[in-house]
Amino acid sequence: MAEPTQVAVVGAAGFGGALCAAIVDRHPSLELAAVTARSDAGRHHRDLYPRYDIKLDLDEFDADRLAQAAGSALVAYPHQAAAPAVKALRERGMKVVDLSADFRLDQARYERWYQPHEAPELLGEAVYGLPEIGHREEIRGAGLVAGPGCNSTAALLALWPLREHLRDVVVDIKTGVSGAGREATRETHYVSAADNVNAYKTEGHRHSAELDQELGSGVGITFVPHLIPVDQGLLASCYSITDTDLSAQDARALFQAAYASEPFVSVVDSPPHTADVRHTNRARVYVTVTGRRVLSLCVIDNLWKGAAGQAVQDLNLMLGLDETEGLT
Amino acid sequence: MAEPTQVAVVGAAGFGGALCAAIVDRHPSLELAAVTARSDAGRHHRDLYPRYDIKLDLDEFDADRLAQAAGSALVAYPHQAAAPAVKALRERGMKVVDLSADFRLDQARYERWYQPHEAPELLGEAVYGLPEIGHREEIRGAGLVAGPGCNSTAALLALWPLREHLRDVVVDIKTGVSGAGREATRETHYVSAADNVNAYKTEGHRHSAELDQELGSGVGITFVPHLIPVDQGLLASCYSITDTDLSAQDARALFQAAYASEPFVSVVDSPPHTADVRHTNRARVYVTVTGRRVLSLCVIDNLWKGAAGQAVQDLNLMLGLDETEGLT
Amino acid sequence: MAEPTQVAVVGAAGFGGALCAAIVDRHPSLELAAVTARSDAGRHHRDLYPRYDIKLDLDEFDADRLAQAAGSALVAYPHQAAAPAVKALRERGMKVVDLSADFRLDQARYERWYQPHEAPELLGEAVYGLPEIGHREEIRGAGLVAGPGCNSTAALLALWPLREHLRDVVVDIKTGVSGAGREATRETHYVSAADNVNAYKTEGHRHSAELDQELGSGVGITFVPHLIPVDQGLLASCYSITDTDLSAQDARALFQAAYASEPFVSVVDSPPHTADVRHTNRARVYVTVTGRRVLSLCVIDNLWKGAAGQAVQDLNLMLGLDETEGLT
Amino acid sequence: MAEPTQVAVVGAAGFGGALCAAIVDRHPSLELAAVTARSDAGRHHRDLYPRYDIKLDLDEFDADRLAQAAGSALVAYPHQAAAPAVKALRERGMKVVDLSADFRLDQARYERWYQPHEAPELLGEAVYGLPEIGHREEIRGAGLVAGPGCNSTAALLALWPLREHLRDVVVDIKTGVSGAGREATRETHYVSAADNVNAYKTEGHRHSAELDQELGSGVGITFVPHLIPVDQGLLASCYSITDTDLSAQDARALFQAAYASEPFVSVVDSPPHTADVRHTNRARVYVTVTGRRVLSLCVIDNLWKGAAGQAVQDLNLMLGLDETEGLT
Repeated sequence: MAEPTQVAVVGAAGFGGALCAAIVDRHPSLELAAVTARSDAGRHHRDLYPRYDIKLDLDEFDADRLAQAAGSALVAYPHQAAAPAVKALRERGMKVVDLSADFRLDQARYERWYQPHEAPELLGEAVYGLPEIGHREEIRGAGLVAGPGCNSTAALLALWPLREHLRDVVVDIKTGVSGAGREATRETHYVSAADNVNAYKTEGHRHSAELDQELGSGVGITFVPHLIPVDQGLLASCYSITDTDLSAQDARALFQAAYASEPFVSVVDSPPHTADVRHTNRARVYVTVTGRRVLSLCVIDNLWKGAAGQAVQDLNLMLGLDETEGLT
Repeated sequence: MAEPTQVAVVGAAGFGGALCAAIVDRHPSLELAAVTARSDAGRHHRDLYPRYDIKLDLDEFDADRLAQAAGSALVAYPHQAAAPAVKALRERGMKVVDLSADFRLDQARYERWYQPHEAPELLGEAVYGLPEIGHREEIRGAGLVAGPGCNSTAALLALWPLREHLRDVVVDIKTGVSGAGREATRETHYVSAADNVNAYKTEGHRHSAELDQELGSGVGITFVPHLIPVDQGLLASCYSITDTDLSAQDARALFQAAYASEPFVSVVDSPPHTADVRHTNRARVYVTVTGRRVLSLCVIDNLWKGAAGQAVQDLNLMLGLDETEGLT
Repeated sequence: MAEPTQVAVVGAAGFGGALCAAIVDRHPSLELAAVTARSDAGRHHRDLYPRYDIKLDLDEFDADRLAQAAGSALVAYPHQAAAPAVKALRERGMKVVDLSADFRLDQARYERWYQPHEAPELLGEAVYGLPEIGHREEIRGAGLVAGPGCNSTAALLALWPLREHLRDVVVDIKTGVSGAGREATRETHYVSAADNVNAYKTEGHRHSAELDQELGSGVGITFVPHLIPVDQGLLASCYSITDTDLSAQDARALFQAAYASEPFVSVVDSPPHTADVRHTNRARVYVTVTGRRVLSLCVIDNLWKGAAGQAVQDLNLMLGLDETEGLT
Repeated sequence: MAEPTQVAVVGAAGFGGALCAAIVDRHPSLELAAVTARSDAGRHHRDLYPRYDIKLDLDEFDADRLAQAAGSALVAYPHQAAAPAVKALRERGMKVVDLSADFRLDQARYERWYQPHEAPELLGEAVYGLPEIGHREEIRGAGLVAGPGCNSTAALLALWPLREHLRDVVVDIKTGVSGAGREATRETHYVSAADNVNAYKTEGHRHSAELDQELGSGVGITFVPHLIPVDQGLLASCYSITDTDLSAQDARALFQAAYASEPFVSVVDSPPHTADVRHTNRARVYVTVTGRRVLSLCVIDNLWKGAAGQAVQDLNLMLGLDETEGLT
């Protein structure tokens, strides 16, 4: 069997998977051993993503061959397609970070928001892959980590330090178009997306289930995503009602305490811009009090800290590497 | 004295004033009699805004000369600069729509958020120029109308039908860059504004005073604007806690009742896009219930319904013209 | 049979056809009698294009029914699909402006660049619909007018005044994404098109055949289009070698003479911006001499003067209306 | 005196200088010793450019102090301001790459296009810093290298392999807004730059002097830049008349021979996109024959290969490091 530092990226033709491959390819301690795709199998990765300049061809998914070439995998398939692939790779002993929703939620939550689970037997071993909210140690020992959703990542980072005080929160997300994926649709057409903003999934977005799970069901969460004409970037604006009368200073102290030693999270002095973190694995968080609410803001690059960067951060932990390696 | 349908636009070099001039110029019952500017006086309007193709030159502000040429004025100066200009024009008997904040608020609210008022004696006659929230009749009889802020227009249209039930509301605004005005600044530089989103004025935005005044001080309002890479367009996302257990259907019925006969406001079936109203004086409003909150969304073009279009709508009413004339 | 001022728009779900419908809908002397679509038949036009606010539903194409409802048609189908539709409408006596390439070229040129012609018997009566380059009188008497391509419109307006002196010309086109049509493709995906520019069809673009036909085969034409992150807008930069030693002043005099009485073409004093003509039927042209070449620049809105606006301009002429009606 | 691998960046508040600082900061063999700025002196670099996350403060320019801290400098001042700064640093023995125009041209060409030179005595030692067009060996031995203009870099890479055959060339440049610099102006305002394209400096752009110098005065060059709504990216479209009848295959062979061993230049099979090289130091070049002309296209990131990346590439050569170090 291959070394765990030999890494396969499954689903490397999509935006998230392609960036996984690019990060692994430049990573000092990892080696990109294989990339796979579904409809684009057979093509040079470089023809799809010249900017990443990866010299591999996209293969069909073949678990045996992948397990020979690689000891670890980053799986960037859509949900439901991911679970069987993850299962096949886990059966062959590979360490896996899955970027889909398939292993983020307990079975009940998953089946309420998605569909019957394709590999429920793996849910027990799956760890929620957001190290900064208390999962770091579990991730280190895990064989299977579920990369959080991009919306959830930003919202959880904005809310985690308040978790013991949260009663009710409005999460208003602004997300760039790359978050909608590589498929060409009416919504992702330049003429639709440019010079436009709109809310979507206003009657309930599946990422709110992750907030519910991680923050505790006692918190009332209203979660509405908005599409904005940005390529890579995501801002979570969180308006919280807390159980105590927190001052801006109190709130800020909670955030600073929570993130003091986090390599990828900065608590900043003014409202952060998504451009400040573009093409980085960093999150910038700001907190203040406005009216009767705590306002906390978090910006990330949805493809980095919201997907591929975070997946490599998780893999670094799983392999005992420095958490930031290949990500700065 | 000139006819009231002879219209001067004061401050026609800015984005809002220039559009006022363009709308008046094409208006079937109004005539554009003069345009003024401060630093751009002496230039052809057409050189600044070729697209609007207005044949007038920008004059210095001269109240006597304006009153000879025009019976009405749209004043598009920044706040504090507007009040003395408005006063001079009112003293000469002109009907005025002022687009600044100077006459939107009662004196106490104004002086809390802005500075000592330059013409408080006019506050008594000023009418808040949002016809759709109960001001239409006052506007018809008014000599001075204050055009609402762009943020306030969208937020008030999204909240008005709920006003009797509102207890607490989070207003999350996404606004295009033209709302920041024509001045070249760090924030409006293409490289800063493109591919970016950020909150600003998180510790309190002056437009929230308009909501407070129009909805009643009993409503707790949290108001946070965000800058997005859009030229013209504004979305207000309003998350309300109401005093009754409104269903989505109930809420929708309230909105349909409120806006059934409004020519510029449509209650729509899915979340509206700012692109749907770009370069129009229309507002599109959507309401639903999500979690424990009523979510109401309103999109406008910030320069049209949020500024110049609404000013002409007000002037139409003041002059006894059809409210929609020149605006469709 | 219906009046010629009753107008049907065939293919009103695409960008060009939808704008045709919107312009006709607001036109003081025309009435929008019907709109058709292929895959979107059955839907409300307003659901596809809320901004245009047209109250009609999209019908299937049915020549008999269209001829009952309308005396004229604007056909906005792709080439090859257009010819049979145009033929059916012409057989029923309707006046037609076709926006496709099907009737722009003589048969030899058409079949070299496209495919065997579906209705060659109509080519004899078809008139090239660019009034400003000597076709105005023919258009007035025509039953069938072929709307020029957007690239060709801008390039021809930039070159026409030089036609007697042209020996060789490089046409470098920059065109907005709406020119690529409403279909969602890899190229029109926001993530591909935003923050990007590229040449395409570098080995020969079909629109160059229109230049060849209209300027005379003696002129050597190199024609390369480029896609830029603009919604609506097109700039043709034309670099000409002429047979005489034209000064900038000479060149400018030729342009002013050619366009002195044109309602939609302005000869301007500095390089024009596409934003100056956005959402208008105007063209702005600039000419100078740089090095050994005449540089002439023309900006248009590709959906207005490059497609729908020009089609209505042609129809105005065909129906004896003022050429600018409904277009200012 | 400091080591040559200790690097100062002079003018690190502008776009080009800031990126120089960022690249040096992450460079394995260089150390960022100091950053200076004029109006922003005293500020944290990180407050201006959070994304680059540089821990230094911006100092005033002080040649003595810089020479103590650093053995090399990248100077990113505007032309005319650069020459005296470069002179002061050279007098103190520092190796310098200057990104301005001040040392790119011979004195005659410089003074024709700019103004009297402030430090003509240094022109003799200055080397034109485009390694790929025959300057590599000179750069290795140089104490002062002049970083080429962004437009010139792309155009020269697109034309160099044809230099022995070139008779006449049209260079049509499309450049992103960051090329206009960090200053907030009418042109760089989001509302002006977004959804727009225009030519500028149509009567002669100073970068054409670099082409003239490097390609030989016998070549007739017509050079017109255009501003497009792109942040970082530049495309040069070059239309050449050559003295022999080159086929597309011949032309391609010339390009492949010229760039076969270049680490940063790829000859590609289809028209390149600026997005393919965004945030990289790479150039992608395509060549074909269309009509009677050779069309050659080159894309670069104007801030990388067009400014900061190339400056570090030059410095790598000057210091005997691997040319690609810190740039991949």
